[in-house]
Amino acid sequence: MSLSFEQNFKLGILGGGQLGRMLIQSGIDFNIPFATLDPDEHAPCASLAEFHHGKLTDYDTVMKFGSACDVITIEIENVNTAALKALARAGKKVFPQPDVIELIQDKRTQKIFYRDYDIPTAPFILVENAADVKKNKNFLPAVNKLGREGYDGRGVQILRTLDDLDKAFDAPGLLEELVDFEKEISVIVARNERGEITTFPVVEMVFHPVHNLVEYLFAPAQLNKTIVHEAETIARKIVHELKMVGLLAVEMFVTKKGKVLVNEVAPRPHNSGHQTIEANITSQYEQHLRAILNLPLGDTTLIQPSAMVNLLGEAGHTGLAKYAGLEDVLKLPGVHVHLYGKRFTKPFRKMGHVTIMDGDVERLKKKVSFVKQTLKVVA
Amino acid sequence: MSLSFEQNFKLGILGGGQLGRMLIQSGIDFNIPFATLDPDEHAPCASLAEFHHGKLTDYDTVMKFGSACDVITIEIENVNTAALKALARAGKKVFPQPDVIELIQDKRTQKIFYRDYDIPTAPFILVENAADVKKNKNFLPAVNKLGREGYDGRGVQILRTLDDLDKAFDAPGLLEELVDFEKEISVIVARNERGEITTFPVVEMVFHPVHNLVEYLFAPAQLNKTIVHEAETIARKIVHELKMVGLLAVEMFVTKKGKVLVNEVAPRPHNSGHQTIEANITSQYEQHLRAILNLPLGDTTLIQPSAMVNLLGEAGHTGLAKYAGLEDVLKLPGVHVHLYGKRFTKPFRKMGHVTIMDGDVERLKKKVSFVKQTLKVVA
Repeated sequence: MSLSFEQNFKLGILGGGQLGRMLIQSGIDFNIPFATLDPDEHAPCASLAEFHHGKLTDYDTVMKFGSACDVITIEIENVNTAALKALARAGKKVFPQPDVIELIQDKRTQKIFYRDYDIPTAPFILVENAADVKKNKNFLPAVNKLGREGYDGRGVQILRTLDDLDKAFDAPGLLEELVDFEKEISVIVARNERGEITTFPVVEMVFHPVHNLVEYLFAPAQLNKTIVHEAETIARKIVHELKMVGLLAVEMFVTKKGKVLVNEVAPRPHNSGHQTIEANITSQYEQHLRAILNLPLGDTTLIQPSAMVNLLGEAGHTGLAKYAGLEDVLKLPGVHVHLYGKRFTKPFRKMGHVTIMDGDVERLKKKVSFVKQTLKVVA
Repeated sequence: MSLSFEQNFKLGILGGGQLGRMLIQSGIDFNIPFATLDPDEHAPCASLAEFHHGKLTDYDTVMKFGSACDVITIEIENVNTAALKALARAGKKVFPQPDVIELIQDKRTQKIFYRDYDIPTAPFILVENAADVKKNKNFLPAVNKLGREGYDGRGVQILRTLDDLDKAFDAPGLLEELVDFEKEISVIVARNERGEITTFPVVEMVFHPVHNLVEYLFAPAQLNKTIVHEAETIARKIVHELKMVGLLAVEMFVTKKGKVLVNEVAPRPHNSGHQTIEANITSQYEQHLRAILNLPLGDTTLIQPSAMVNLLGEAGHTGLAKYAGLEDVLKLPGVHVHLYGKRFTKPFRKMGHVTIMDGDVERLKKKVSFVKQTLKVVA
């Protein structure tokens, strides 16, 4: 038996950011030739593989790019799905499938999907505009989400009081019951064309005790077995019902009463799986490649407890990026630094991440604090 | 503190083979811009970074290539050291240093170095030509080695009987006492500019019981502590006395009497360190980058027992490479496949390698057998 991607093959990625970059880095092992498309000519992937400069949301641009590829995947959801559907009809392999991307692009259809398939999620109501939100004041406190184009915190806001109603989004979206959660967790699940499904161990986001910000990820999640099992079952069910091919990151809440509720999903490699590069036998990137190339899915076993710290642009610094404290962090045993190759930093821009491995969980947490206090992206 | 390689920097690699390829793959994490030089326009590095097509032994070619780089390193020893010396004089960082490369290029100067520095190695005599070899028939059985340009088994032969003397190399070389060894082992050691030295755990080459061929590598080596300590001490001593900067692979014999003797060294990433990509906290590739960029050396801890199987072109097959059995191997838990991107296979060409990790050593050995029997590079 031999594989089709060995000679004269091209895998196209819509998006040329850090997720695409780590996908390419992993694909070197399988000798996969890549092409990427991105609107930023200095995108992290630009120097690593064949690069095309253009808009991901433009039909003709995506058609032209995809026509020269054998398999097409994404590293960002905001892409032209009409072009992807036409490419799929023309015989290209497009994974995740365009209809899955479309369903996930809109938080409204995502929530309807959860409801239709009995997947636990916070109660919600659809709203068409700001007036609609105001009609539902009895639903407060709630999260007001835009249906489309909201990500990395944009297009999401909490409405607690009647005064907050004045800032309601004036576009199709939804109101979701505010979840009183104990923890935020994530399960990355993969499915290949032949229907095999594998999950990565549950990851836990640890929050800052004062500011309500994710400080770092921790694997494995410190949860009881029942909750772990429930989270994995939910992730499997979603990817099975979607019949999608590729990787799906399922972000979930664990409520104070121990219930697991789906927050949202992303059909691609995800920030909550960066640490799998070092900490698991198969990384999320290799798993995505295995899934979309219809290879057997890899062993997701966690080798050692690990943590992942996002390296964000320091507040007050905009310009050519410098990495202060890098040497001190590199001295620390068990640390892996990943820089994304972004020339310019700006406040809170994702510039890289640090994975830390340590068999001793308490020491691991101390190292997380050290990395967060020491390594700064400045201009 | 910030580092000099962040902006407008270029790291040049002489050689564009699989070692360069894995060095580039690792360097993506530090966002290092690479350039490579290789005489083969389809070299494994050609599609991964800035690529220059040219001879590594040509003074002008190496000068021109190196002049556009900030730091220059090698992934093969057979390079023009006169050009590297001129580049070093002109202020470029050249690691390993040209005089170290020169010393190691010639097996005669290598052996003299061991003798001068009291580093245990098999007794030897220098010979200038075939007539010289024949004069030393009382030294048989011996290994006859060419001084220069012998590697991967070329330029090395065993002379057991008087009849064998007829095939003696007719060029400057040496005769080395044939070592009755129990095991062949390797220690990879790194030294940075500030003189820090770190060793990787000792690796053992396991030989085929019938044919005298390395079947696979095994880490950690199954040796008693005294021998492990002796091997590490020798590796540290060599790199310290050479005052070299970069990675040095030290191949050694363990004799049946438990003595450790140096066989030969290579001043670069090495076949005996491939498994460090997955099995150790820091890989040999990242360690080489840390060393030559004068960063703190990384943690070399072995995370799990591991083995490495070379994927060689199948005998009788020459042409466009195909990987038979790849799917079956990818199904095996704990397996990592690395293909080097060589379009054409030929008998015994190094086409890739497979790293296997398993906490259970017996199961690990079974997996090694399965991989060797299953995965074949054919045309």
